[in-house]
Amino acid sequence: MNPQSDVSRVVPGAINALDRLVALFSRLPGIGKKSAGRLVYHILDSDASYARTLGAELQGLHEAIKRCSRCGSFTENDPCPICTDSGRDHSLLCVVERAQDIRIIEESREFNGCFHVLGGLIAPLEGINPGNLSILKLFERVRDEKVEEVILALNPTIEGDTTALYIQRFLKEKLSAPGTSPADGSLEISRLASGLPVGGDLEYADRLTLSRSLRGRIKM
Amino acid sequence: MNPQSDVSRVVPGAINALDRLVALFSRLPGIGKKSAGRLVYHILDSDASYARTLGAELQGLHEAIKRCSRCGSFTENDPCPICTDSGRDHSLLCVVERAQDIRIIEESREFNGCFHVLGGLIAPLEGINPGNLSILKLFERVRDEKVEEVILALNPTIEGDTTALYIQRFLKEKLSAPGTSPADGSLEISRLASGLPVGGDLEYADRLTLSRSLRGRIKM
Repeated sequence: MNPQSDVSRVVPGAINALDRLVALFSRLPGIGKKSAGRLVYHILDSDASYARTLGAELQGLHEAIKRCSRCGSFTENDPCPICTDSGRDHSLLCVVERAQDIRIIEESREFNGCFHVLGGLIAPLEGINPGNLSILKLFERVRDEKVEEVILALNPTIEGDTTALYIQRFLKEKLSAPGTSPADGSLEISRLASGLPVGGDLEYADRLTLSRSLRGRIKM
Repeated sequence: MNPQSDVSRVVPGAINALDRLVALFSRLPGIGKKSAGRLVYHILDSDASYARTLGAELQGLHEAIKRCSRCGSFTENDPCPICTDSGRDHSLLCVVERAQDIRIIEESREFNGCFHVLGGLIAPLEGINPGNLSILKLFERVRDEKVEEVILALNPTIEGDTTALYIQRFLKEKLSAPGTSPADGSLEISRLASGLPVGGDLEYADRLTLSRSLRGRIKM
């Protein structure tokens, strides 16, 4: 593969190696042309071994990291370490929108179950329908893996709420059909609590968040 | 070269390819661990050709881009295209702190002279003394390249001001020594104007900027 011709295809008008890298970096989310320039100059000022290591890692990334065939997370080994960890609670399934959400939940150290990546949220205007998400796969896992509780850890947005509602109905309906093992009602489905962020201020809470935290108030 | 062992040396505890890339990205300026994660997941979600191209460009960066032996800018060919451009005014030299400043000035399309990269600003507390910067080289260029004007395009900070003052005195002194070609006084030395940013608001200008823009007021 000739990287130079490959970039000129992707980034027309990028003349030299420096411009090509700036153009490539500025395609990353949250990185404009100016930040991209800053990054490239920083890399140029740094030791050459850094650029070489970063380059090698990037080149090997898609070979090294695959999707876990069970939960859909990114992993070096399929199934992923979480799916194969016998120390985790396999009857508890946390449903997330994207693979990166797993990292966020893992960092809270509050959860010891397994995960299921949907691959998006229902958004008909953007052409994302339930069929595009791994919702049927979720049902199959619930049915086959003796799952007792599903936590829907989706963003508290319209798309997240819609998707959560859809999944709840879909699972209930499918599980109540004759022949599926857990009897209707034996599966618990929950959502993450919505409310004030810890350390936040009532004064700065928006109306919707406040009304949700009121409805979801916790007895002391 | 084995990239994996190279990273474990740089980033201890980085277990898999994904973590290693996050650790490498988070060493870039302005990119924390969270943003680094976002970047890596974005790259994973993108087409593999992007990661491969970016990787190849990074690996070849330090071989492709060198310092211009004349002005100190980053370039693929030495001397750089600006230094060898006969359409530019070689009697006008713009002195900048870092190579990336050239890009900023070039983008203003206001300047048609040549550049000289100092490689830093005088900051004795950080151990950067005049001898660490290419100030002597600047004098040699002024002497040998028939330079008529030097514009000091340094940041309007204490370090920038100190460096500008030092360079001004250094050049005057050196050029007034017997045997150096341009007679004393034939070299003009100027600085970038300091003042209110265009589109800015008097109300938000700090006291120092305001006092500078008053002292440097322009007759209409």
